[in-house]
Amino acid sequence: MKQLSERMSNMEASSVRILTKYAVDAEAKGKKIYKLNIGQPDLHVPEEYYRNIHAFQEPTVEYMPSQGIPELLKEVEDYYKNTGIDVNKENIYITTGGTEALMFTLFSLINPGDEVIVLEPYYSNYNTIFTITGAKPVAVTTYAENGFHIRDRASIEQKITENTKAILVTNPGNPTGTVLREDELRLIADIAIENDLYIICDEVYREMVFDNRKVTSFGFVEDVHDRLILIDSVSKRYNACGARIGVVISKNKEILQLISKLCQGRLSVSTIEQHGAVGLYSTGMRVINQIRDEFEKRRNVVYDGLQNIPGVICTKPEGAFYLICKLPVQSASNFLIWMLEEFEDNGETVMAAPADGFYATEALGKNEIRIAYVLEPDKLKRAIELLGKGLQIYSNK
Amino acid sequence: MKQLSERMSNMEASSVRILTKYAVDAEAKGKKIYKLNIGQPDLHVPEEYYRNIHAFQEPTVEYMPSQGIPELLKEVEDYYKNTGIDVNKENIYITTGGTEALMFTLFSLINPGDEVIVLEPYYSNYNTIFTITGAKPVAVTTYAENGFHIRDRASIEQKITENTKAILVTNPGNPTGTVLREDELRLIADIAIENDLYIICDEVYREMVFDNRKVTSFGFVEDVHDRLILIDSVSKRYNACGARIGVVISKNKEILQLISKLCQGRLSVSTIEQHGAVGLYSTGMRVINQIRDEFEKRRNVVYDGLQNIPGVICTKPEGAFYLICKLPVQSASNFLIWMLEEFEDNGETVMAAPADGFYATEALGKNEIRIAYVLEPDKLKRAIELLGKGLQIYSNK
Repeated sequence: MKQLSERMSNMEASSVRILTKYAVDAEAKGKKIYKLNIGQPDLHVPEEYYRNIHAFQEPTVEYMPSQGIPELLKEVEDYYKNTGIDVNKENIYITTGGTEALMFTLFSLINPGDEVIVLEPYYSNYNTIFTITGAKPVAVTTYAENGFHIRDRASIEQKITENTKAILVTNPGNPTGTVLREDELRLIADIAIENDLYIICDEVYREMVFDNRKVTSFGFVEDVHDRLILIDSVSKRYNACGARIGVVISKNKEILQLISKLCQGRLSVSTIEQHGAVGLYSTGMRVINQIRDEFEKRRNVVYDGLQNIPGVICTKPEGAFYLICKLPVQSASNFLIWMLEEFEDNGETVMAAPADGFYATEALGKNEIRIAYVLEPDKLKRAIELLGKGLQIYSNK
Repeated sequence: MKQLSERMSNMEASSVRILTKYAVDAEAKGKKIYKLNIGQPDLHVPEEYYRNIHAFQEPTVEYMPSQGIPELLKEVEDYYKNTGIDVNKENIYITTGGTEALMFTLFSLINPGDEVIVLEPYYSNYNTIFTITGAKPVAVTTYAENGFHIRDRASIEQKITENTKAILVTNPGNPTGTVLREDELRLIADIAIENDLYIICDEVYREMVFDNRKVTSFGFVEDVHDRLILIDSVSKRYNACGARIGVVISKNKEILQLISKLCQGRLSVSTIEQHGAVGLYSTGMRVINQIRDEFEKRRNVVYDGLQNIPGVICTKPEGAFYLICKLPVQSASNFLIWMLEEFEDNGETVMAAPADGFYATEALGKNEIRIAYVLEPDKLKRAIELLGKGLQIYSNK
């Protein structure tokens, strides 16, 4: 048989799901696993989602306009205006999740050989999108010691070549939980303007910022609006990951024209999910604020718990619902597999994501894990306790 | 600003939607348009879709397994077993529409420079997928005179080069309405085996075959199962285009492994739409047979109507719900625009898709249109009458 796609064959499988088979085996043996490996929150979707889903009764389930249904475009526009970001319906395309939004963005920007600067550690599913769009990621490493903030201007500038096309930023950060400060956005904006780069900002955790922090967004940075593409989604903001409704926003007409062609090529986004999303956005700030408060509480539980485990190092996350921590082990992957295969305490264990998959630079993150604190506080407390007990036994082996 | 994606900039917009702006203007002036330009049927979605959608009440709308929910995989497996095609759950991935299914297939197969042989005229949205996956389409022209069947073995073989990777077939055909005979499938199978090519078959109109024809499918051609990828969808079979639920099927483990990575990269398909699709498949052959009978009736109305218009040439479509016909004009596009801008009869006009967008070969299809017979028989009768009246006036201008 002829050789299949080389780039797809060479691509590693998602690190977030890499332990799945060990988890399946452990559960088959009756072990209870606290799962902190996937960013799938347990909170409830607002009832307005089901209200709108149930109200939809059209005799035929038709294709909708490729850009999105007018009611949803209006809700997204209103949400942005309330947030203080000035976008109009013409700037918005509804997509099948934030994933499709980023995919269409890179398909629109990238020519063969083009590089995209990305702060690492970064969300590992970006790698699939880099692979299929041909974008070459160039990682600017950020460090736990510095709360995964930008080290300095040079750390970015030294990575810029004649092939650099864009800077991709996730703010608040997954897997870091870092919220970029206004001066960091300004720095990125200045670099983008000076070097004529596009800015892609994935802001799906936008309002999940803790300790009374202000929301920071490139949407507030006016002088980059012509080179900015915002990626957004209902997944995390409304506990609706499975709805697969995302948004791509730009004020650059040429970019919108290419995104429009890509949207036409895939016809339209699920009709009923778009109606459900209208319900989600109609909740205004009610649900968004509840979710932020709940995750701040959970962040405290997890962070405090980790402080009590000898040898574990992590900085206090500022937003989203993730944190990266260093463990006193050589290989976090081996430790996590051991936790699933060997460890148990009262029939229970805990699962997180090995962090090396979030780094593009080889050898980084080997002793780090990502924790998604997506369980109720009591369960989180127990999960962190299990992590501590596991580490104690593992270190003494 | 730096240059955006060259390949996306060079890609033409969808020919199916190219007349949209003229239609919007005509409707703004109060003109009624019979729309035969888009494959959006007016038939009702089975109530089992809404039954399952309304039964779904999970507190959190979670990501589902990337492959699809087990209930839907089971229904698809059962549907195929009933059809006489032996596939198991492991061979099936649920996708966001047939579009994503084809996209993932080509991403899995294609290396730079690889060519895909495709019978033309073909579904124009394939072009977006060719563009983003880097597949180079090589068209084998089929002709109205021959009912758009394969002319001979040489017509395909002469297009094969060392770069040919796959043959893509749509059966039954869009935009042609042609149902390939068993001997044609055998011919393609033999060519694929001899030249070590993959076969991609888009069979979303599978059961829509008229005049008591037998369903033909590469699923029945056993000796190509290791090189076959089937594309399928609920869109046309259950009047659920807006549900965006498709399927990709293969027995080639290497291909499935790459498709699995792509599925993981986009996380999952809409949760509630998958439950709706379980309802669709649960209807067995009831809805499928109704739809086939209804479209056969409509096919007769359209075909008979066209026979009465002087200068119009078309062969009787054998399946799907499309036909291509030649008009006695130089430019079908100009005529269709004229129909929207200038023509009216009792305030009514008709819209179809210019067929040149369905040909990759320059200069072909200029005097042809595609008619999607997706309206009730009475409306179709009137639509074809309008086409005839328009042609009469246009020819005498």
